[in-house]
Amino acid sequence: MALSNPDHLVTSSDPDHPANLIPSLCAKFWSLGWVTGTGGGCSIRDDDLVYIAPSGVQKELLKSSDIYVLSLAAQTSPARTYLRSPPSLKPSQCTPLFLAAFTRRRASCCIHTHSQWAVLVTLLLEANKSSVFEINNIEQIKAFPRPGAANLGFHDTLRIPVIENTPHEEDLTEFLEEAMDKFPDTCAVLVRRHGVYVWGDSVHKAKTQCESLDYLFQLAVEMHKLGISWISDIPRTAPDRS
Amino acid sequence: MALSNPDHLVTSSDPDHPANLIPSLCAKFWSLGWVTGTGGGCSIRDDDLVYIAPSGVQKELLKSSDIYVLSLAAQTSPARTYLRSPPSLKPSQCTPLFLAAFTRRRASCCIHTHSQWAVLVTLLLEANKSSVFEINNIEQIKAFPRPGAANLGFHDTLRIPVIENTPHEEDLTEFLEEAMDKFPDTCAVLVRRHGVYVWGDSVHKAKTQCESLDYLFQLAVEMHKLGISWISDIPRTAPDRS
Amino acid sequence: MALSNPDHLVTSSDPDHPANLIPSLCAKFWSLGWVTGTGGGCSIRDDDLVYIAPSGVQKELLKSSDIYVLSLAAQTSPARTYLRSPPSLKPSQCTPLFLAAFTRRRASCCIHTHSQWAVLVTLLLEANKSSVFEINNIEQIKAFPRPGAANLGFHDTLRIPVIENTPHEEDLTEFLEEAMDKFPDTCAVLVRRHGVYVWGDSVHKAKTQCESLDYLFQLAVEMHKLGISWISDIPRTAPDRS
Amino acid sequence: MALSNPDHLVTSSDPDHPANLIPSLCAKFWSLGWVTGTGGGCSIRDDDLVYIAPSGVQKELLKSSDIYVLSLAAQTSPARTYLRSPPSLKPSQCTPLFLAAFTRRRASCCIHTHSQWAVLVTLLLEANKSSVFEINNIEQIKAFPRPGAANLGFHDTLRIPVIENTPHEEDLTEFLEEAMDKFPDTCAVLVRRHGVYVWGDSVHKAKTQCESLDYLFQLAVEMHKLGISWISDIPRTAPDRS
Repeated sequence: MALSNPDHLVTSSDPDHPANLIPSLCAKFWSLGWVTGTGGGCSIRDDDLVYIAPSGVQKELLKSSDIYVLSLAAQTSPARTYLRSPPSLKPSQCTPLFLAAFTRRRASCCIHTHSQWAVLVTLLLEANKSSVFEINNIEQIKAFPRPGAANLGFHDTLRIPVIENTPHEEDLTEFLEEAMDKFPDTCAVLVRRHGVYVWGDSVHKAKTQCESLDYLFQLAVEMHKLGISWISDIPRTAPDRS
Repeated sequence: MALSNPDHLVTSSDPDHPANLIPSLCAKFWSLGWVTGTGGGCSIRDDDLVYIAPSGVQKELLKSSDIYVLSLAAQTSPARTYLRSPPSLKPSQCTPLFLAAFTRRRASCCIHTHSQWAVLVTLLLEANKSSVFEINNIEQIKAFPRPGAANLGFHDTLRIPVIENTPHEEDLTEFLEEAMDKFPDTCAVLVRRHGVYVWGDSVHKAKTQCESLDYLFQLAVEMHKLGISWISDIPRTAPDRS
Repeated sequence: MALSNPDHLVTSSDPDHPANLIPSLCAKFWSLGWVTGTGGGCSIRDDDLVYIAPSGVQKELLKSSDIYVLSLAAQTSPARTYLRSPPSLKPSQCTPLFLAAFTRRRASCCIHTHSQWAVLVTLLLEANKSSVFEINNIEQIKAFPRPGAANLGFHDTLRIPVIENTPHEEDLTEFLEEAMDKFPDTCAVLVRRHGVYVWGDSVHKAKTQCESLDYLFQLAVEMHKLGISWISDIPRTAPDRS
Repeated sequence: MALSNPDHLVTSSDPDHPANLIPSLCAKFWSLGWVTGTGGGCSIRDDDLVYIAPSGVQKELLKSSDIYVLSLAAQTSPARTYLRSPPSLKPSQCTPLFLAAFTRRRASCCIHTHSQWAVLVTLLLEANKSSVFEINNIEQIKAFPRPGAANLGFHDTLRIPVIENTPHEEDLTEFLEEAMDKFPDTCAVLVRRHGVYVWGDSVHKAKTQCESLDYLFQLAVEMHKLGISWISDIPRTAPDRS
């Protein structure tokens, strides 16, 4: 029945329904310069159901009826099947990367941006042959989780791995998964000369972590222009109580 | 009859009608800084009918009733005739350039911006006596078409020709056409110290290509400030499947 | 009677009435960063009536009922009298400067911004002990009038005088008037370390010239960062037909 | 009764009620990049009642029902009690810092931003081992109060103290209070690598002073990039009449 009339999967009067949230988030992301020219994307998981913005659409014009839906459990086979496919659109090439965040991290939302600040950070790191973005002693770092209950502290170092870009977005999946394994605490992976993938346990967390990361990327580029190092050695003024 | 009551040509309740789309696009372009101070413009072709924003108007305040309409087929003679001319406005000086994109490339939409990023890129190229903007190994390059079915790949080089500015915008036409002939794959031409013309097979393509180009122009200026080259030599990690 | 019930002077359902236009313009200027922190201002003249935004208000929240009205003809005496004074507000200190544009240039609208681009241009000029901003060979220059009918051409040099700031805004008036006399063609005067005054024959012209100037100020700052001169020597490619 | 049904404390149809003003201000602050990723905050005092945005919320989505309310007089004990606590939210860690502005300065509103311009200014000062931001001879300085009736003059020097960041935001309180004592005229305190606290006698003053400060921080960063000193020696052209 769902297959014969799958539009009910994306029809809701609740503004917090994934099929409504993805368009409102994408419009916001477009204004922030994160999904320029149909680039980037967003996916939300609600239990077993995965909602994904399609490929190649103007993100600020996205509608609920444009959303793809698939079952996370049914994605073990190589061929991907959708519970709902909007007519005359194409599935997002980010799909396997979103699924990696949902299966490996039990994330509920994953955001992919082409933010220029993310791209510029990967270019600055490339000049140093580095594959990890590191920054410490900036208040906004406290927005990020660390293993255990509490978030990172002000003096802690935030580390975001960088993977090399591939000609085909799907081919990034294995490298993204490798980075997830190597950096078990990270909530994001930078893609060199491309952008960033950010996920979280909820839409709220994915979105606010993505904002905080973009803030840090922009700050890092400006710090570089001003000759200020991303890593500094500031004595801890108080024991960490968290 | 059309001539005696031509307002029907720009009257529609369909938000996707060219006479409604041009104002909504221009308002968006104004917010992006592309059409500041009445600069820049936009035209849409629907089969033989060409819709054009007028000269000298505040683009964020444009109304459907301000739109000029002409027939593409009837433009062979030197004197231009309009199916509809709004009273007390002037035709856009970009008109012959828009028509070049429609006749030479069968484009359906052409956008002209004065984006500062476009102007700065032409100034940086001028310092190198260069007339071609070239960039490679940036994900956003994949937004651009290449001869044949598929778009450019990540490792491909996007090339956008630059023509010199002329005192009168109409005089750019022959140089724009020359650049179109010399760069048969390009969807855009930069104008030195002036801006850029971008076209596409649909309004969607022209708009998203214009956005992606502006993204690359901005990125290129920032890369230049950070001492990072626009062209890099990154080994191809996988055969191109497209 | 006007004096006993002067609110009719600012009450109109016409969105183009000066008392409605000033608030909508100021909200736009606030978004552009031109009137941050109650700085800057705007005035419109309709024949003998002059409408002015008050001092010290949040410009994006301005209402029609906040607008001062005075008679241009009645301002010859040293003491200024208002046809309408909103209760519990203060008149703008820019008033005599707006009046200078209306009396000396017969302008219909005058805009004063604290745009950072304007301030930065005056600082860069100060380092060269210069009191004139000059730029040529940029398309946007064609937005500015020159003596006679036509606007400046692409190869012409736009010149905007800079006056030194004074501790009290009213004291700028004589220097503004001097600059108007010395640069009879200018539609704007920069104020060192302060901002810019821009006027025009209509609200449309003042607003679009202010936008075009701000575009050029921003471009000039970016050009300076990139080591590109504001004045260049490009051979004229065609006789000027305008 | 207030305790049994405290929602009336945040329910009002008046857009200027603190429980309505905080959400509308926070949405504006989000657009300005001041409260990215749930960072920053805002509090308003109405006589003895203090209204505070909660911790960890997306500031552009804040609702009146999310607001905490407490009594200023009842905060002398170490344990803080709230007249109203929204269910499933956490109190802001900025609370003791807001209260410091209300008790020590009789402020009516306090704003805390993570603005990148504020952070960059503290980083530039750190490189000079400086703990005071100083700037003079910029018009926007006149937005700030000085002891006695009038505001700072154009030639006066605005001084904003910088305190070092602490791992826990509450621990900033004693240092903020120290800075308030040492700089009795200041309406703001910068926090190194973190942001800024700004207060005022009214919501209007706190908001417009915060805007003017952010304007000066951004201008100062740009001036630094252009090699222009924040402090200059310009002869006073006129006696100060204020």
